[in-house]
Amino acid sequence: MEKNQDILGRILELSLLFDFYGSLLSEHKSKVFEDYVLNDYSLGEMSSLYGISRQGIHDLVKRCIRELEAYEKKLGLVLRFQSIKEKLLTIDRDAEFIKATHKFELIDSIQQTVCEIMDEL
Amino acid sequence: MEKNQDILGRILELSLLFDFYGSLLSEHKSKVFEDYVLNDYSLGEMSSLYGISRQGIHDLVKRCIRELEAYEKKLGLVLRFQSIKEKLLTIDRDAEFIKATHKFELIDSIQQTVCEIMDEL
Repeated sequence: MEKNQDILGRILELSLLFDFYGSLLSEHKSKVFEDYVLNDYSLGEMSSLYGISRQGIHDLVKRCIRELEAYEKKLGLVLRFQSIKEKLLTIDRDAEFIKATHKFELIDSIQQTVCEIMDEL
Repeated sequence: MEKNQDILGRILELSLLFDFYGSLLSEHKSKVFEDYVLNDYSLGEMSSLYGISRQGIHDLVKRCIRELEAYEKKLGLVLRFQSIKEKLLTIDRDAEFIKATHKFELIDSIQQTVCEIMDEL
């Protein structure tokens, strides 16, 4: 069970990396990565589909992952966008709270969060 | 005068591209680009500094620009971040207005803008 969770977590992580940097992979690599990692084809299916050995598919996917991780190391977009998303949710929660309580002080908190997001852009 | 404005606009544009994607250039290219475009060294100075012909420097900088523009075409970060910045300024303006007028209706507008930014992430 725990192992499945780990695998799901890893697939989510790779899918985020692919969302951000997939367009920087070659078309061929991008297709192979998408089919194997995101569409969950087996090595056997991939091998027949692309006419490459199972080992070849395995190596290609590893190279894709290294490439995607290298982009994240340099640009850090996944981390940056996740942090911005969390801050936007804070603004939204503050706004809800102001609507419910009419406590204006929280407006300052919204503006503070806006500044923090600006700093990350 | 108009030409100077054009040049300044172009340098700003290139400097934004370099901010976002400079880390994806090789170290050598990155240095050459920075010195020539951002630190405004002349071709003559660059040529002595790097021991490359003026034409060589010129070609290298052109290749850097093509590379940076290709990244922007694929990832569109400059456009995306500019759009997010404008929306954050709108939230900030709405917050100021709420503080000044105590008009709560604008809270909905803040939440709407938060949703719009989320869609861009």
